[in-house]
Amino acid sequence: MIIDCHGHYTTAPEPHTRWRQAQVAAFNSGEPAPDYPNISDDQIIETIEKNQLRLLRERGADMTIFSPRASAMEPHVGNEQVSESWSRACNDLIGRVVSLFPDSFIGVCQLPQSPGVSIKNSIEELERCVLEMGFVGLNLNPDPTGGWWTGAPLTDHSWYPIYERMVELDVPAMIHVSASCNDNFHSTGAYYMNADTTAFMQLLQGDLFADFPELRFIIPHGGGAVPYHWGRYRGLADMLDKPPLAEHLMDNVFFDTCVYHQRGIDLLFDVINLENILFGSEMMGAVRGIDPETGNYFDDTKRFVDALALTPAQRDQVYSHNARRVYPRLDASLTARGL
Amino acid sequence: MIIDCHGHYTTAPEPHTRWRQAQVAAFNSGEPAPDYPNISDDQIIETIEKNQLRLLRERGADMTIFSPRASAMEPHVGNEQVSESWSRACNDLIGRVVSLFPDSFIGVCQLPQSPGVSIKNSIEELERCVLEMGFVGLNLNPDPTGGWWTGAPLTDHSWYPIYERMVELDVPAMIHVSASCNDNFHSTGAYYMNADTTAFMQLLQGDLFADFPELRFIIPHGGGAVPYHWGRYRGLADMLDKPPLAEHLMDNVFFDTCVYHQRGIDLLFDVINLENILFGSEMMGAVRGIDPETGNYFDDTKRFVDALALTPAQRDQVYSHNARRVYPRLDASLTARGL
Repeated sequence: MIIDCHGHYTTAPEPHTRWRQAQVAAFNSGEPAPDYPNISDDQIIETIEKNQLRLLRERGADMTIFSPRASAMEPHVGNEQVSESWSRACNDLIGRVVSLFPDSFIGVCQLPQSPGVSIKNSIEELERCVLEMGFVGLNLNPDPTGGWWTGAPLTDHSWYPIYERMVELDVPAMIHVSASCNDNFHSTGAYYMNADTTAFMQLLQGDLFADFPELRFIIPHGGGAVPYHWGRYRGLADMLDKPPLAEHLMDNVFFDTCVYHQRGIDLLFDVINLENILFGSEMMGAVRGIDPETGNYFDDTKRFVDALALTPAQRDQVYSHNARRVYPRLDASLTARGL
Repeated sequence: MIIDCHGHYTTAPEPHTRWRQAQVAAFNSGEPAPDYPNISDDQIIETIEKNQLRLLRERGADMTIFSPRASAMEPHVGNEQVSESWSRACNDLIGRVVSLFPDSFIGVCQLPQSPGVSIKNSIEELERCVLEMGFVGLNLNPDPTGGWWTGAPLTDHSWYPIYERMVELDVPAMIHVSASCNDNFHSTGAYYMNADTTAFMQLLQGDLFADFPELRFIIPHGGGAVPYHWGRYRGLADMLDKPPLAEHLMDNVFFDTCVYHQRGIDLLFDVINLENILFGSEMMGAVRGIDPETGNYFDDTKRFVDALALTPAQRDQVYSHNARRVYPRLDASLTARGL
């Protein structure tokens, strides 16, 4: 079984996206948001079958851990109520995808974060998604300002309420920013990478997992700059009098395989223990084109993993076992189905 | 001949650093800065011989392109005048190092940047350093706010005055931020990497080199996250309707070898053309310890380059020819000495 840990609903039905525009416009003009539109099952089925499900099948994977479009989370837009309504709408849509395609998708939620608002206020939506809709994890945005980074690092105690609830619910978080509204940072070319690198270094500087030994984070996009600079991070841990990275972080931090060329994937697997790598493609996401050098999609990361000299047991680990270990609710769901 | 393109005077004499503290304290209390202290040649010689020069010799390199300590540039501290006095003091000290050790060091300046102040105001100091002290390049800070990123991207026309003068003087810039005053970003573990990645992506999004075909940038720390994610950047160029990276950027953008483990260096050389790689170690810089896995200094990047299967001609290119091509004033200086 091949599980892709990183997929976003980037092809959501048009009425959903139009409603978001209307919601923001209403907020900006001080009016109440319009009612959320009716979206038929057929509309959802069409957007999924033509896109993510088609590619999942073409590429030979079985299931995607599926969450709302990351660039559209936009916690910085509007206010807390705007973020909450939007998050509920996005998560509900993921819930419907999962209900329609339970064999191919399982849900991860976005949180109704809002700059300056306590993360406590996101717990209710997390619980709703996990306990009522069977979601198995969450996307945690380390910078809800959209590129201004005026909040506190992930190791700050202000984040602890969500970590406490994550541990109780036994759900991991993918650390994932949304679109950048800072002109310095292209969203998928700079902001995403920077957030990944930044999150890892925050965790390295702190001792968060001493307080939460069961907490688990997936740092996407192959860990940003981290594996390429693994020597730097090992050296910084040493300079900062931290334990070696293996002890300090790597029981709790995992990287996906969203690295869009063979040499990058090679390095990831050479440097990072197999236990810490989860197959992911970010499909359909940041880079949707075909690589003229290979004739394949840039984000068809399965080809790169398949090209590695892994034993069948190692392949299973990266494609399935690690995801089931990091997302125990996914494992329980699959086990209950005899998978 | 082996030229290290990336060294900072991180061991400057104590009176220099104490003066900086006094300068900032005076500014904060609204008083005039004290006079800059007398620093003897012997004091400078001691700090260099015991540190950078010792390591240069031990590691078998010949010359370092030497600039003021990056983390101490701090353009965000004080105001424009504070930045200007400090930059002059730092650059003068580099000038003295170069005068004392002309065979081993050649100068690169910091600029008296200040948040919100036109880059035009930095041109005079650049000219002073290049034309009066024989410096061969500059460090250009893409975020003089120290981690708040409220300025304009490097492709913005507000930067053009410095580019015009760089082209006239035929000097390249290393893109290098200073210390972070944003708690989210550890300086050497996140902010430096992020700035490198960000700068590359800004250049990818823009068309700066259409306006300045002769402009040259060194992106340090092995290019941040870029080589590891080379497929992503090739794909983003395609999505943004830009020419292939080789045409779009790689006549003008160069990476150093400040990547502190063998596998990272392997990837850099596998992915990036040899013409675009300059040997550098950032010595003595971000990571000063010894890697327990190898028994060697993390930042002894020459060992990693030496371990590559390069022909003698290729080694010369990375160790010397590329630096002489990118820094023509270095080449002229060496040629004048028969080197």
